[in-house]
Amino acid sequence: MKEQLKQLIDHIQPLDGQKVEEALQHLDQLTKPPGSLGKLEQIAAQVAGMTGELAPSFEKKAVIVMAADHGVCEEGISAFPAEVTPQMVLNFLHGGAAVNVLARHAGAEVVCVDIGVNAELEHPNLVSRNVRKGTANMAKGPAMTEEEAIQAILVGVEIVDQHVAQGYRMFATGEMGIGNTTASSALLSVLTGMNSEQTVGRGTGIDDERLVHKQTVVRKAIQVNAPNAKDPLDVLAKVGGLEIAGLVGVILGAAKHQCPVVIDGFISSAAALIASRLTPLATGYMIGSHLSQEQGHELLLDEMGLTPVLQLDMRLGEGTGAVLTFSLVEAATKIMREMATFASAGISAGE
Amino acid sequence: MKEQLKQLIDHIQPLDGQKVEEALQHLDQLTKPPGSLGKLEQIAAQVAGMTGELAPSFEKKAVIVMAADHGVCEEGISAFPAEVTPQMVLNFLHGGAAVNVLARHAGAEVVCVDIGVNAELEHPNLVSRNVRKGTANMAKGPAMTEEEAIQAILVGVEIVDQHVAQGYRMFATGEMGIGNTTASSALLSVLTGMNSEQTVGRGTGIDDERLVHKQTVVRKAIQVNAPNAKDPLDVLAKVGGLEIAGLVGVILGAAKHQCPVVIDGFISSAAALIASRLTPLATGYMIGSHLSQEQGHELLLDEMGLTPVLQLDMRLGEGTGAVLTFSLVEAATKIMREMATFASAGISAGE
Repeated sequence: MKEQLKQLIDHIQPLDGQKVEEALQHLDQLTKPPGSLGKLEQIAAQVAGMTGELAPSFEKKAVIVMAADHGVCEEGISAFPAEVTPQMVLNFLHGGAAVNVLARHAGAEVVCVDIGVNAELEHPNLVSRNVRKGTANMAKGPAMTEEEAIQAILVGVEIVDQHVAQGYRMFATGEMGIGNTTASSALLSVLTGMNSEQTVGRGTGIDDERLVHKQTVVRKAIQVNAPNAKDPLDVLAKVGGLEIAGLVGVILGAAKHQCPVVIDGFISSAAALIASRLTPLATGYMIGSHLSQEQGHELLLDEMGLTPVLQLDMRLGEGTGAVLTFSLVEAATKIMREMATFASAGISAGE
Repeated sequence: MKEQLKQLIDHIQPLDGQKVEEALQHLDQLTKPPGSLGKLEQIAAQVAGMTGELAPSFEKKAVIVMAADHGVCEEGISAFPAEVTPQMVLNFLHGGAAVNVLARHAGAEVVCVDIGVNAELEHPNLVSRNVRKGTANMAKGPAMTEEEAIQAILVGVEIVDQHVAQGYRMFATGEMGIGNTTASSALLSVLTGMNSEQTVGRGTGIDDERLVHKQTVVRKAIQVNAPNAKDPLDVLAKVGGLEIAGLVGVILGAAKHQCPVVIDGFISSAAALIASRLTPLATGYMIGSHLSQEQGHELLLDEMGLTPVLQLDMRLGEGTGAVLTFSLVEAATKIMREMATFASAGISAGE
């Protein structure tokens, strides 16, 4: 199975530098001061480099919401009880969660995946790919085995494979899992060497006392498991989560198919950091979305050189910031496709 | 005519505090940690307070693009020649400019108004309300008379009146006018007391030498005209612009009709500052959009307490950032309308 992951990683190509250059040249001929559309122009060029098309269209797009439970919840690190994970999965499936509303607004599909929920879930629209019923408590031992981590990654890849086969061309990462900011903080700490005071935030809304406790739990998880910071799979297995592993797969899958993948908030960015450590080429296919209120998110984005385009002070996860960004990516490609050039519009150029 | 403006200003109502409160209470019952949708929640509550509806819909919306020329161009303060103003107006009318592409993407109308272009323009879709053929050179005397400034404001109000009568419920400010960052910097300097080194930026892209020259021109315009900082109409007439005055009218008109008005970049924000000095109640109807690369924009937003929701490093104007924000305002109202509550979804609440 590790071999399968290696083959996938070898398959990922760098962006097409010539297409990026062509896109930038086209952008400079459009009726606007050069570079004045800022990050929209950068996204347009990046997407051209990914897809090999100057102005691709993204009729079909999906946010892949990976759901899983976290054994570390028994340490009391969250403001919500673990039972909320399966309850929210049903909410996604009934279309009532924030990510459903915002995905409908963006014309995108919500694909809800049980990759490790600690409950028996059944629904016609649920993608049931449960690897195990939640991680083990990482404060006492490894969250999961490396085999389980790889299995969860490959689930993410396979779901992207299936959607690409159905014509989907753009993806976003989403997640649900009570306790998953704790795992993400641990990943960030191990992969960057930053201490838990820097990487641990308030998640869904804990008080000062519980914040200090959460920092202690993250430190303990790292001490107990001693993950090898140079081996992203080891880190992911020991202090990660099943939904995080699934999203690593979604990102690698999108990169494999040369599709943009919009990275949501803190937890999704932790998955993105693992993916970029597995292969730096994956980073080229990532598009930043919002800057979360969750402490540590900015550190994660900086680590990968991603910049947010939305400044909404959100801290919900689910993929909510990422689906809002779909519209901006499409705006960028429409700029490429629909704007007049100085020559075609008969407009005097600047100096 | 001044009496007409006074009546309009007296007509503007504060936001409905009870509706704001109702909206906030509803938001706290939705299936998400309280406040976790950040500025989307603030926008939802603000829009409820404006319109008196908890979840209004904005099927019909328009960006009003006011175009005008600036006599101060003869001082050589822009990277583009003044002839670009009418050329770009034609580009708007042919649908080839950035604001056209982004407005189509947002499902919004572009209303292009000749409020002071120094050219003979004709087109079936052009709203021809030319007050005068460009301002006079403010480095030598007043840009226009107070009567002309008021006339231009009332044009903006009237255009909003007409569109509200046709069912439009949300507006955005847009502009075109070579030289208008110079006028906006002068307005900002006078209204806040900041010096021209703080308020003058590179506009469409001038070099260091011309930047210093532009600062000198702004200082000179203020010295020559000595506008009364406590009289926003005096400031607008002496160192403003016709398109800026028109946008003051668009903002006041939207406020009068209790409609949200999304404020674009630096020039639009200068108009917004004038409107908020005419009546602080107008500020309640404004929604911030992006943070422009233009120096001085952040100062303007801070002055009004507006916060940007997009972080795109744009510096194009035209209304481009504002029309991209339409989609976020609609997302906020859909959250109000479509999300499940904890009770309806059977989800355990947090602590």
